[in-house]
Amino acid sequence: MRSWVESANGPSADFPLSNLPYGVFSRTAGPKDVRRVGVAIGDFVLDIAEAWAELVPSEPMLGYELFDEPSLNPFLAEGRVVWDFVRNQLQSWLSAGCPVLRDNTALRERAMIPLSQVELHMPIEIGNYTDFYASEYHATNVGSMFRPDNPLLPNWKNLPVGYHGRASSIVVSGTDVIRPCGQTKSDDAERPSFGPSRLLDYELEVGFVTGPGNEPGQRIPIEDAANHIFGLVLVNDWSARDMQKWEYQPLGPFLAKSFATTISPWVVPLDALLPYRVATERQPDDPKALPYLDGAWDWGLDLRLQVALQTVEMRRQGMPPAVITDTNFKHMYWNICHQLAHQTCNGCNVQPGDLYASGTVSGPEKESRGCLLERCWRGTEPLELPSGEKRAFLADGDEVTITGWCGGEGQGAERIGFGACTGTVLPAIVDA
Amino acid sequence: MRSWVESANGPSADFPLSNLPYGVFSRTAGPKDVRRVGVAIGDFVLDIAEAWAELVPSEPMLGYELFDEPSLNPFLAEGRVVWDFVRNQLQSWLSAGCPVLRDNTALRERAMIPLSQVELHMPIEIGNYTDFYASEYHATNVGSMFRPDNPLLPNWKNLPVGYHGRASSIVVSGTDVIRPCGQTKSDDAERPSFGPSRLLDYELEVGFVTGPGNEPGQRIPIEDAANHIFGLVLVNDWSARDMQKWEYQPLGPFLAKSFATTISPWVVPLDALLPYRVATERQPDDPKALPYLDGAWDWGLDLRLQVALQTVEMRRQGMPPAVITDTNFKHMYWNICHQLAHQTCNGCNVQPGDLYASGTVSGPEKESRGCLLERCWRGTEPLELPSGEKRAFLADGDEVTITGWCGGEGQGAERIGFGACTGTVLPAIVDA
Repeated sequence: MRSWVESANGPSADFPLSNLPYGVFSRTAGPKDVRRVGVAIGDFVLDIAEAWAELVPSEPMLGYELFDEPSLNPFLAEGRVVWDFVRNQLQSWLSAGCPVLRDNTALRERAMIPLSQVELHMPIEIGNYTDFYASEYHATNVGSMFRPDNPLLPNWKNLPVGYHGRASSIVVSGTDVIRPCGQTKSDDAERPSFGPSRLLDYELEVGFVTGPGNEPGQRIPIEDAANHIFGLVLVNDWSARDMQKWEYQPLGPFLAKSFATTISPWVVPLDALLPYRVATERQPDDPKALPYLDGAWDWGLDLRLQVALQTVEMRRQGMPPAVITDTNFKHMYWNICHQLAHQTCNGCNVQPGDLYASGTVSGPEKESRGCLLERCWRGTEPLELPSGEKRAFLADGDEVTITGWCGGEGQGAERIGFGACTGTVLPAIVDA
Repeated sequence: MRSWVESANGPSADFPLSNLPYGVFSRTAGPKDVRRVGVAIGDFVLDIAEAWAELVPSEPMLGYELFDEPSLNPFLAEGRVVWDFVRNQLQSWLSAGCPVLRDNTALRERAMIPLSQVELHMPIEIGNYTDFYASEYHATNVGSMFRPDNPLLPNWKNLPVGYHGRASSIVVSGTDVIRPCGQTKSDDAERPSFGPSRLLDYELEVGFVTGPGNEPGQRIPIEDAANHIFGLVLVNDWSARDMQKWEYQPLGPFLAKSFATTISPWVVPLDALLPYRVATERQPDDPKALPYLDGAWDWGLDLRLQVALQTVEMRRQGMPPAVITDTNFKHMYWNICHQLAHQTCNGCNVQPGDLYASGTVSGPEKESRGCLLERCWRGTEPLELPSGEKRAFLADGDEVTITGWCGGEGQGAERIGFGACTGTVLPAIVDA
């Protein structure tokens, strides 16, 4: 599908007409708190409210007010019929042959803003955040460090293990991440001590955002799960491994994760990802799934994922970020539909604007491991960077960038990009 | 302090003038979605917005709009200066000698509504919910069931162990609780199965609600923690023990808790509880606390807590609820200030309207254990109820009511009551 926005066409464009990810922006020239919902198209963002007010003045189903909002939440709450209607409308306006926006110079100048002239904000107001643990490679790698004989616990292949995460500290890409302080205890110490984490890590994850959910006590059947999912984002679940090791028994990770979680500013609609569905790697009978999880096996996603690292020294020498993880979302054992069906199987109510992250995405190769803990095997195999520096965990000043895209493999093939999910580690704030 | 509201005076009143807990109500006669903030005084609720509009028409600091709201959150965000100002104002209007409301018949009839004529709703819109595990008696009892030689893990006495809970399924007292379905696996079964939980439990807890918090990366020093705490509520952290046992390793409780958590409708301001502060039972050197936790040892609270159970059969026979737990919040090892200081020590940002629950409150005696798992020791010592029925875990139709109060011990002594935190177990919804 070609767009009259030229930068949206061609195999290297992240945001072609068939993508149209949603985000929340303000104009660099304007006040930061005047925020609106937009879609990315090529090198531009379309101010939906602006276009809607002029092109759909008397639309009875919904008004432009839905997009004159500082978050996607009101739109998310509308559900799939409205999502589809809006997406069709936007694709129509932006398609190569459609003149209504293309040839309306005044409107186009008001509504089409170069990406270089906007600041992107948190796209959603996240009510509840769950973090799963759905990669068999990741769970096996991490488990084998602590329990060599028995890396996967007995429940792991029977249910998508997950835990509640902290919603308040989820930030948008580009936000600096302050190194956390916390309690740690080395094996040879008598007592724990308090100070900046020394084993700071990234975790490459993919999250989905929900629309209308279920009533308390009801559940979302696995066959219906995808209807409740609006779209996907990239997630960096920053983790302080030394704090995690000391605190996590028996109730799970807490302060080791709650200091910051970064998401990408663009929410890629599920519709845009449909052509990239693949069979889930978990087989339905490995072991036989319980009925409420036995479905949606065709909801794996062929989504390429990379993590790039750039240190202060690399920036100083003008070196580009170095790719240190290269993996694919198709390797997940439990897919997004399994996760949502499991989340609600006890009657827990899901709401518009919830975030459900996958857990670290790791693949079978060393290079496809999605965090430094695995990548450098607990610090024993540090990475050598192009600058000659070594890294087993993150240092202050390190910038971590996750990118992801579907497609783009064959010659001239279109790709559906997620943009970047970036954060730079700042030194801990230590009291005088 | 006497009030001209006669039902607010006397030793058995839960809501004397020195309490004034905040809640959100609608009028039984009016539409359910017209909700406002009120305070309980005797058998009445004061519609604050109504009184404010007439009695403080030109107050520049804040308007009545703060109370013409469906939740306490805007008021919570104002912080302690405004909280104190409002509380002083309300106490003045309602005190025995003050005529402005007492003698204004028209206003009094508009603003003072009998509690019997209101419906109470969720008082706060809870952004983030943390559940701690701060009773040594509870942690030791539960730990000893699973690890007889080593009931408390090494971290437990060094930090307030906690985990993120699910905010979306927190409901107000009076809401029915549907028995959850989930995966369980008995020790002798090969595979897990899915169905209604058979080991449903209550957990008696106390939670605190925060006002303005900290910036990301900053922390709240323990000496300052109380300034960020608005007030306390009663909490029933319903728990499905069979689901919990199967799912909780390694990331902690998830679906075993996320189906429902009940809170009391009234938030008792911290100010009302100050006279009941006691030394925390944990000694500062048991072991020596790390500096960021070494303070606020005078923030224990002498708060009596009871759980009462009424079965269908007891209701049929006209029997009152039977008290099955009788304990005190003063037994906690970590107090509310420790919890908040720990929550933020990694820079995690706390926000107005967050809920932080204590974990099960258990005391040294059998009767003072705050959940059935402990009370009936894993089902081996069922309770005999006045109806002749036995209970080791909850049955459908059981109504569980938590109450709590400070004071009221000496003759004629005033008491600060929390009201009731009630829920009735409904049968699981099982697909046909």
